[in-house]
Amino acid sequence: MENALYRYRITLEYLGAGYCGWQRQKDGLSLQQIIEDAIYAFSKERVLLSVAGRTDAGVNAYGQVAHFDLSKNLEPKRLMHSINHFCFAHTIGVVDAQLVGPEFNARFSAKSRHYVYKILNRKHINIVNKGLVCWVKDILDIGAMQRASKYLLGRHDFSSFRASECQAKSPMKTVDKIEIIKHEEFIEIHISALSFLHHMVRNIVGSLLMVGKGNWSEEKIKEILEAKDRRAAGPTAPAEGLYFLRVDY
Amino acid sequence: MENALYRYRITLEYLGAGYCGWQRQKDGLSLQQIIEDAIYAFSKERVLLSVAGRTDAGVNAYGQVAHFDLSKNLEPKRLMHSINHFCFAHTIGVVDAQLVGPEFNARFSAKSRHYVYKILNRKHINIVNKGLVCWVKDILDIGAMQRASKYLLGRHDFSSFRASECQAKSPMKTVDKIEIIKHEEFIEIHISALSFLHHMVRNIVGSLLMVGKGNWSEEKIKEILEAKDRRAAGPTAPAEGLYFLRVDY
Repeated sequence: MENALYRYRITLEYLGAGYCGWQRQKDGLSLQQIIEDAIYAFSKERVLLSVAGRTDAGVNAYGQVAHFDLSKNLEPKRLMHSINHFCFAHTIGVVDAQLVGPEFNARFSAKSRHYVYKILNRKHINIVNKGLVCWVKDILDIGAMQRASKYLLGRHDFSSFRASECQAKSPMKTVDKIEIIKHEEFIEIHISALSFLHHMVRNIVGSLLMVGKGNWSEEKIKEILEAKDRRAAGPTAPAEGLYFLRVDY
Repeated sequence: MENALYRYRITLEYLGAGYCGWQRQKDGLSLQQIIEDAIYAFSKERVLLSVAGRTDAGVNAYGQVAHFDLSKNLEPKRLMHSINHFCFAHTIGVVDAQLVGPEFNARFSAKSRHYVYKILNRKHINIVNKGLVCWVKDILDIGAMQRASKYLLGRHDFSSFRASECQAKSPMKTVDKIEIIKHEEFIEIHISALSFLHHMVRNIVGSLLMVGKGNWSEEKIKEILEAKDRRAAGPTAPAEGLYFLRVDY
């Protein structure tokens, strides 16, 4: 069998601060480049990673999934340790690796993508969790945020929550889950969908924060959706609070 | 009234990595020096901080408490913001400030000190929580650790868990609480006492980890206590997992 290729699926954990995001850029170091270079370092093969979620600059991940093909049949655990060895200086690492069939595609086989947005909600300064959460000083009304978030569930035109640079063909997306959980000083906003528009999660969080602070009514979220205009929604929440949690296949 | 002094109680959150610990040293930058220098920067008064727990190099805190005296009567919230302004470049900050009476002493008025030791217990690499927890790869038997920890409750001679440099007069200490909690991949060991010997919490954790890994029986903790010899106990657990949680007055 000529040109037989072995496909590997890897799961990645990373902190996005200081990198230009997942995708390779001419200027700046991307997470994609770090992993592709690490694979080259021990395999001498130039691979192209496909990824489930192309996260923006500064966005973090617990369970990002990517795939790539190699001509070598490597033991997945060894492959994982080799990649980690060569990206040790960076805040990214492989937490799982598997050999998969050629039908698996990290991007197109995904059935559901899960994000979590982490907020530290307290008046006083954030030291221990600096850079790992979004610090919000104004005490948030979680009940109002929870009720407001219900308007976003289901299939909608999310143009109001879409970055101008978004390359998606359609602004129609289906939000399957949106859950807001408070634990002591921490608030987590969990959002799940098959796919998202560019900046969609951070724009949703930015608007829910306006509701939580009492600046906007709960119904305003419904009005924003109906406006189908980015100018109607709130600011984009900071990247540091956002984590790509996991993918279902 | 001449020489009237105003006593302030401040609560501090910090990450200890990169500093030589709480206490001023000839070589190396201490957390005490950072705060004392910050107070001098706006008050032009040289103060000496008294602290509830003199944490070692690399140890962290959520609710460390210190006190100091100033000749100026300052609004506590403003004092807090002034200190934070001048230690902004460091991983320490004031999270609460109060004006207290001269009878309050951060060290000697303490009724109970609470520490938590944080462990990330999983086989794969730690990225997001690097430096914030102790990463233990071997999956720990929490039940065994919980049962073993019971031997440490109450008043004992803790010589086996005492660093050679410890300056305490007596090795007798009373552990009021020791609780081991697992939440997903995280394990927290909570320990409370009026006071501790030098390295006592980290040495206790080091020995409990030996039990959790199955290297030692649960009863070995009892034998270590009875040996009253540092060589009987396990290694000192890394500083990065330890947090000074809070003080009761």
